[in-house]
Amino acid sequence: MKKLMITIALLYAGLFAFPQRKMPQVRPNIIVFLVDDMGIMDTSLPFCKRIMPLNKRYHTPNMEQMAKEGMKFVNAYAQPVCTPTRVSFITGMNASRTHVTNWTSPQKNNNTDPEDDQFLPLNWNINGLSPDTATEHTVNATPFPQLLRDAGYYTIHIGKAHWGPMGSPGANPYNLGFMVNVAGHSAGHPQSYLSEQKYGNMPGKAQAQAVPDLEEYYNTNTFLTEALTLEAKKAIGVPIERKEPFYLNIAHYAVHVPIMADKRFVQKYYDAGLDSTEAKYASLIEGMDKSLGDIMDFLRAKKVDKNTIIIFMSDNGGLDAHLRGGKINTHNSPFRSGKGSVYEGGVHEPMIVKWPATVPANSVNNNPVIIDDFFPTILEIAGIKTSKKIQKLDGISLLPTLKNPAVKIDDRPLIFHYPNNWNATPDEAALGLNYYSAIRFGNWKLVYPLRTKKLELYDLSKDIGEEHNLDLSNPVETKKLAALLGNTLRERNAQMPIEKSTGKAVPYPDKTFIK
Amino acid sequence: MKKLMITIALLYAGLFAFPQRKMPQVRPNIIVFLVDDMGIMDTSLPFCKRIMPLNKRYHTPNMEQMAKEGMKFVNAYAQPVCTPTRVSFITGMNASRTHVTNWTSPQKNNNTDPEDDQFLPLNWNINGLSPDTATEHTVNATPFPQLLRDAGYYTIHIGKAHWGPMGSPGANPYNLGFMVNVAGHSAGHPQSYLSEQKYGNMPGKAQAQAVPDLEEYYNTNTFLTEALTLEAKKAIGVPIERKEPFYLNIAHYAVHVPIMADKRFVQKYYDAGLDSTEAKYASLIEGMDKSLGDIMDFLRAKKVDKNTIIIFMSDNGGLDAHLRGGKINTHNSPFRSGKGSVYEGGVHEPMIVKWPATVPANSVNNNPVIIDDFFPTILEIAGIKTSKKIQKLDGISLLPTLKNPAVKIDDRPLIFHYPNNWNATPDEAALGLNYYSAIRFGNWKLVYPLRTKKLELYDLSKDIGEEHNLDLSNPVETKKLAALLGNTLRERNAQMPIEKSTGKAVPYPDKTFIK
Repeated sequence: MKKLMITIALLYAGLFAFPQRKMPQVRPNIIVFLVDDMGIMDTSLPFCKRIMPLNKRYHTPNMEQMAKEGMKFVNAYAQPVCTPTRVSFITGMNASRTHVTNWTSPQKNNNTDPEDDQFLPLNWNINGLSPDTATEHTVNATPFPQLLRDAGYYTIHIGKAHWGPMGSPGANPYNLGFMVNVAGHSAGHPQSYLSEQKYGNMPGKAQAQAVPDLEEYYNTNTFLTEALTLEAKKAIGVPIERKEPFYLNIAHYAVHVPIMADKRFVQKYYDAGLDSTEAKYASLIEGMDKSLGDIMDFLRAKKVDKNTIIIFMSDNGGLDAHLRGGKINTHNSPFRSGKGSVYEGGVHEPMIVKWPATVPANSVNNNPVIIDDFFPTILEIAGIKTSKKIQKLDGISLLPTLKNPAVKIDDRPLIFHYPNNWNATPDEAALGLNYYSAIRFGNWKLVYPLRTKKLELYDLSKDIGEEHNLDLSNPVETKKLAALLGNTLRERNAQMPIEKSTGKAVPYPDKTFIK
Repeated sequence: MKKLMITIALLYAGLFAFPQRKMPQVRPNIIVFLVDDMGIMDTSLPFCKRIMPLNKRYHTPNMEQMAKEGMKFVNAYAQPVCTPTRVSFITGMNASRTHVTNWTSPQKNNNTDPEDDQFLPLNWNINGLSPDTATEHTVNATPFPQLLRDAGYYTIHIGKAHWGPMGSPGANPYNLGFMVNVAGHSAGHPQSYLSEQKYGNMPGKAQAQAVPDLEEYYNTNTFLTEALTLEAKKAIGVPIERKEPFYLNIAHYAVHVPIMADKRFVQKYYDAGLDSTEAKYASLIEGMDKSLGDIMDFLRAKKVDKNTIIIFMSDNGGLDAHLRGGKINTHNSPFRSGKGSVYEGGVHEPMIVKWPATVPANSVNNNPVIIDDFFPTILEIAGIKTSKKIQKLDGISLLPTLKNPAVKIDDRPLIFHYPNNWNATPDEAALGLNYYSAIRFGNWKLVYPLRTKKLELYDLSKDIGEEHNLDLSNPVETKKLAALLGNTLRERNAQMPIEKSTGKAVPYPDKTFIK
């Protein structure tokens, strides 16, 4: 009977000379709302067990609302800088496997690692992600938007891309499976957030970071975050109208430098006594939060909110004081350090998921999860088998625990691998920047500083600030985690920096473990 | 039974949790291959009854092949400059109705008409086409790609757009119904054709004409025409893979100025004795022709050539000597004048249609047709009713005569209306540039010079060069056409220039007709 009905259905479809493609939409729409350089404390929504001072500084009512209607992940992770996270996100591979371990330059074949006294330049994949093998120094993988597109999803990218440099296919989201691309290219930050400065496209002044595609908003007093939001709403209006499932990647340039005032929100932060930089930063955050609210309102108005899953995420920790002002180790407090570090302030992210039909409202998920998980999760949600991908995944699908936060994900190694130099600063040691690997397994975290090779062990269940190194008091756990980190890095053929003095690579942590 | 089968089909579709959207593709794919500033003689394919000297100069084997496999239109028309044609093309309205009668500046609210001694600046729609009413000085219309997109077509724009200035929605093809846009924006020509010059995107040197989106090709020795062709093939690969019908607008920047050498082809034109400008121009043409061949080859390789209609067209006549070198009135010979003129050299276009299943091979169509006809033709081909459009159409569907060139289109007024100033040159009078209206009706053509108001009548069946003014010898026909032109302009509320001396508008031609 089933076969007969297929036959009848196909026959019938063939009767139309020009069949309209209207099918009942049952596949969910999927939105990833990705913020740039947003720290886990850059919100009024608490991700710690209690409300912290920074939660009182910032105003993100829409994140609060989203968490009420959905699930808050309090142990979600990314890599310490943006391109590695973005490549992991779209490929499902960990940075230790992609060898895209630092941010990519807008220029091809340009290693962004500053010169270092101790280490030779690392031969990492400086040209980022590529959908084919034609470009040197790239990781070759099948991005999930391509699988969504192939399966009939209307795929949209809005905002920051930063998957590869100019002159490589990875520069253009179109080559990564997106049908629509607005404002995404090779650059990792905007030249300007201001429409009065044409987002950087000023004659004679435009740099590689001038934001493309937004000519419509020049001189309209439209902050970049708002322009991208308007474009996102416009873009998803099309598949909604066509009754096609869509995937929207809205990847804000906010809250990355240049820290500029979003005039709609900045005054109250001045009034609250914040200094210029911090008031502007807070306005960038609130502008981003307003965008989230606008998207949720739009879905509701179009009556597709119930069948749309939104995943809120940031790509790395918040910028700490050495590039922002104030005291170091404070901007992601109580978490340690910030962007560029494998300590919690650099990798622990604000993550929220809303999906009315499936994800319990006002729920909290304690499972440790990582950006690598987005690929298999999104494809499972879309009902797409991943057999067509060419890469080996490191992530796992979160769908079971999205349905029920009590479903525990088995302990597995979450790897942070940064054999690179992000930012040469006298505060490097104090902040734990540059040349680090780390692993989280259960509540344990092992940090492996590649310069000193002195392992550090933390119990995150008691010490989210990573202040109490248990290395000496718990050598058994340290050894166990060193072996797990070492074996995992080995299996992924992870790159390690080469010592200038010896010409030898830094050993994997289990080989340096001599206690 | 029909009703039951619908029910069964719908029920069955509902049984899938995640139905794949695969339907038999019966709607044809549609490609408009639009060349910029290409004159009707800029090809080795003769559009006159015999082979002319210029047909021997140029090499366009793929146009020849396309004509062998399809239908050549020998009386196809557009407007004298690009934006008016492009707006008519996408809206189905004649330029006399859109009031977009000159090319639009990349800058908003910028009237591109040079100052004139005789006429006040015309209050034309200097901001081009807009899909909504929010922008001043625009024509508000429903572009056909939007209707195609709404009906399930995968709509793609590649190349020159030029429908509106920066700061208006018309600048972005995405706002006009295209899902994919590569390289289309507010500018009417490329800053450079060369990848070594990043198509104009050189730091500190980029102007409004720098071509967007092609970062992947920088410094790859890829001529702009080739880059656009590669992007077009990539873009249509997606709907072909998804088994969705597509509309591709491939609108080459070639052969518009800056006249630059396409190195792949230029040498043989030097060898043939052409001067530098003409050799480069010929190479631009042959590069464009190669693109046409590559697209046709790609369709064949993907096995969709039989179900794909390709329409080849140019947007106005070829540039004449005053902006190119050589003697005036020669570059479109035997046709008179060129771009900017309502004489045949400015508006008579090379048009070819190929659609294996429907359009007879190696056929010639003598019907006078005009760019306004593209809108209803394309929608009828796609099986889409145009009831959702907001504008009144001037074009008619060519589908009946595409199926059979013997089907004659009833005589109707084809209007060329240019109450504007394109190019202040001492040769204005000799070339018939600036401030002209004209009508073709059957084989008759009436030219109305708005400066002198001295009507000219030509019999195109005997005088394609418009050399013999029959105004005096045939006052009856002159009067009849003046009335038809006048009434048509009146019905469309066409704008006429205002005399500085009197403050009065130039009268419609039937009111000036005093014989």
